[in-house]
Amino acid sequence: MTAKSALPISPLAVAFPAMPPIAGVELAVGRAGFYKQDRDDLLLMRFAPGTTCAGVFTRHAVGSAPVDWCKASLAATGGSGRALVVNAGCANAFTGAAGAAAAAAVCAAAAKAIGCAQAEVMNASTGVIGVVLDDGKITTRLPGLIAALDADAWPAAAAAIMTTDTFPKGAVAEAAVGGVTVRIAGFTKGSGMIAPNMATMLAFVATDAAISAGALQTLIDGMTPRTFNAVTVDGDRSTNDTLLVFATGAAGAPLIDRAGDRRLADFKAKLEGVLLDLALQLVRDGEGASKFVKITVNGAKTPASARKIARTIAESPLVKTAFAGEDANWGRIVMAVGRADEPVDRDRLSVTFGPLTAARDGAVADDYSEEAMSAYMKHPELEVGVDVGVGRASATMWTCDLTKQYVAINGDYRS
Amino acid sequence: MTAKSALPISPLAVAFPAMPPIAGVELAVGRAGFYKQDRDDLLLMRFAPGTTCAGVFTRHAVGSAPVDWCKASLAATGGSGRALVVNAGCANAFTGAAGAAAAAAVCAAAAKAIGCAQAEVMNASTGVIGVVLDDGKITTRLPGLIAALDADAWPAAAAAIMTTDTFPKGAVAEAAVGGVTVRIAGFTKGSGMIAPNMATMLAFVATDAAISAGALQTLIDGMTPRTFNAVTVDGDRSTNDTLLVFATGAAGAPLIDRAGDRRLADFKAKLEGVLLDLALQLVRDGEGASKFVKITVNGAKTPASARKIARTIAESPLVKTAFAGEDANWGRIVMAVGRADEPVDRDRLSVTFGPLTAARDGAVADDYSEEAMSAYMKHPELEVGVDVGVGRASATMWTCDLTKQYVAINGDYRS
Repeated sequence: MTAKSALPISPLAVAFPAMPPIAGVELAVGRAGFYKQDRDDLLLMRFAPGTTCAGVFTRHAVGSAPVDWCKASLAATGGSGRALVVNAGCANAFTGAAGAAAAAAVCAAAAKAIGCAQAEVMNASTGVIGVVLDDGKITTRLPGLIAALDADAWPAAAAAIMTTDTFPKGAVAEAAVGGVTVRIAGFTKGSGMIAPNMATMLAFVATDAAISAGALQTLIDGMTPRTFNAVTVDGDRSTNDTLLVFATGAAGAPLIDRAGDRRLADFKAKLEGVLLDLALQLVRDGEGASKFVKITVNGAKTPASARKIARTIAESPLVKTAFAGEDANWGRIVMAVGRADEPVDRDRLSVTFGPLTAARDGAVADDYSEEAMSAYMKHPELEVGVDVGVGRASATMWTCDLTKQYVAINGDYRS
Repeated sequence: MTAKSALPISPLAVAFPAMPPIAGVELAVGRAGFYKQDRDDLLLMRFAPGTTCAGVFTRHAVGSAPVDWCKASLAATGGSGRALVVNAGCANAFTGAAGAAAAAAVCAAAAKAIGCAQAEVMNASTGVIGVVLDDGKITTRLPGLIAALDADAWPAAAAAIMTTDTFPKGAVAEAAVGGVTVRIAGFTKGSGMIAPNMATMLAFVATDAAISAGALQTLIDGMTPRTFNAVTVDGDRSTNDTLLVFATGAAGAPLIDRAGDRRLADFKAKLEGVLLDLALQLVRDGEGASKFVKITVNGAKTPASARKIARTIAESPLVKTAFAGEDANWGRIVMAVGRADEPVDRDRLSVTFGPLTAARDGAVADDYSEEAMSAYMKHPELEVGVDVGVGRASATMWTCDLTKQYVAINGDYRS
C-alpha cells in the first residue's frame, strides 16, 4: 500500500476510520501494473451468495465501458452482486467495442473463478481515458487475489483505488433493523483530475443488512441529490462516476423489500450518513483545497431552484478564489445568485458568513464589520448562508476554494 | 489618462485603433474621484438631436440602478439617446431606492445641462457594488465636461471606463448604406473582477448611420449571441453589463426603419464585426490570460445545443488549466462535452486542435502525434474543434486559459 501521489496531504484531511468486518464481505488488493510506481492498483471484493446490489452512475453523455457493463448487468440480474473488480490507472473510457470486450473479459474471468454468473460481477475503472483496458493485467492476478481475500482489508482497498487523492477515504456506521444490529462500511476516491488521470468518483458501500435490490436502489436514488450530488470541486464530471451499494443479508436481520418499510428508518439515516461522510471527504481532498465551505440557500421557490442557486455559488471561480483569499466577498455571492437565473427578490436578499450578516434586505448590513468578517474567514471550515426571499425551499452544497495550487496541479503536470 | 491597474499588460493585447470622428458624436472625460489614484473615471458622450438608441443589458437577476434606468428610459422614449454618462469606481448596484435616486439625479443634471429629456440620457456604472453612487461627484463635473466635449476623445473615453482592464479596447469600421459611407466606432471594458471591483462588461458603439431605434434593437439582439454572449472568461456575470448602440443619422444616409432592409446588408456585417472585435478583446484581456482560445462545435442537434456544448467546454476549469499547461488534453474536452447534457454520439465524436486530429469516431486518432500536439499548443492563439456527430448545427465560443495569475488576481488582492 504505497501512495502514488507526490502531492502533499490535504490540510483538510480526516483520518481513515476503524472499519469492522461486514458479514459476507471479503476484500483483497494487488498490483496489476497500470502504474509504473510500486503501488496497489487492483481491488477484488467478494460477496456472499444472495447479495443484492444497486448502483448510481454518471449521467455523462460519453460514458465508459465499465459503467455500461454495470448498468446492463444490474438490469439483467435484477440487482445481484457477487463480486466487484476495480482498477486504478486506466479508465477504459472512450474505447468503443474493444473497451467493452475488455470489461466483459475481466468480469467473465472473475465470475469463473468465484463461481457465479458474469452479470453478477461489477466492474469499475479510473485513470487514463482513451486507452483500452489491458484485461490480461487483471485476469492473471485474480487467482492470487482470491487466495488473499479477507474481511479486514478496507484501508488497503480504499488506498488501491486512489488516483490523485491525497488520503484514503472511508466511513462506517451501525444501525438496527428489526432489532438486529447491522453494519455499513464504505470507501470512496475522487475528486481530482491530473492528466492523464480523470476526475472519476468511485464509491463502494457494503452492508450486512438484508434489503431487496429494488428497495436498495430506491434508497440510494433518493439520497444521491443530498450527498454525492451536493458536493462539487470544480464542476467537472467524469465518464466513470460510480456508486455501488451491496447488501449481503448476512447479519440475520429481517429481509426488507420496500424502501418505505418503517423498520428501515434507522438504517436509512445511517446509510445516508455514510454516503454524506464519503462525499464530504471528496471535497476535503479537492485539488489544492485549503477551505471547506458549506453553502446553504434558503427562501427559494423550489428545492430545484435552491439547488441551482447553491451550485452556481459553489462553482463560481470568483467566489472560490475569494474563499482562497479569505475575503468575505458578499458581492461575488450576490453575482453568483443572480447568475443562476432563478427567482430571487433582490430587495429581500441576505448573505451571511457563519454567524455574521454581510447583507440584509438587498443592501449591506448596518452592523457589517470588516474586522469581524476577516477574522471569521481565516477558519479552514466556512459556512455561507443565502436567503433569496421568495419562498421556503432550501438546499445545501459543499465545496472547496480555488487556489493557485489547483491550477498548478491541473496545468503544470507536464513540467 | 492614467492607468489604474498595477497589472502587467496582457500578452494577448491588441493596439487601440485609429478612431475617426463620427458625425454627431462628442466625448469628454474627467476625474470624478471614485478612485484614490489620479486617473479619469468619468465619461460624457453627447449625441446630435434625433439620435436613436438601443441596448442589451445583463440578464442578472439582481441588476443595478443604472441598468434599471436605461431600460425604463428606452421604453419610455421608444429609443432616443442624447447623452451617456459613465463612471468607473462605483457600480451603484445592490443599492436599492437610494441607488435609483442617485442614477436619476445624474441623468437629470445631464439632461438639464444638455437640453434634453431626462429619459434621453443613458447611464452606466462599474466598480464597487453595495455602495450608493455619490452623484454629486458627477454632477459637479458636468459643466467642465460639456465645455471639453470634442469629436476625437475615443482613446481617452476607452481608458476612463477601465477598471481591471490592462489595455483600452476599441474597434472601428466603415459601411455603405444606400450609397452613402457611414462610420461605426465603439469601445468596451471588462472582463475581470478584482474586489471590490466587479466583472462588469460595458460596451458603447456609435454610428452616423440613420436607423430607427426598433431596427437597431433588432440588429443588436440578433448579434449578441454571436458576439458578446459568445465569449467567456470565467463564466461569471455582472449586475451592470450594458451594451448601448447610438445612431446619429448625421452622415446623411437614408433612414432605415426595418432591420431586414437590404440596404443594411453591408452595415449589418460591419456592425457585427465591430461587436465581435470588441468582445474578443475582452477575452484577450481575461484576467491572467496567456492563451486566446477559439472553440467550435459542429455536428450538434440544434444551435442552442451547440452553444451549450461550446460554453461547457469553454468554462471547464480542467480544460482551461490544460490550455495554461499547453497540453492538448482531449480527454478533458470529451469530459466537458459529456457534461453539457446535450445529445452526442460518442462513437462519432471527434476532437481537433488546430490542424491536428486528437480523436476521431469516438477513439484516439490513429495518426495522433504527441509531439505535433505539444508543438501546436505552444501557440498563444489556439483553435479547438469538436464534432459531436448527431446533426448539422454549429456554434463558436471564445475563451482564455485559467492560470495561477487568475487566482492570484482574484484571491490575493488583499495581501
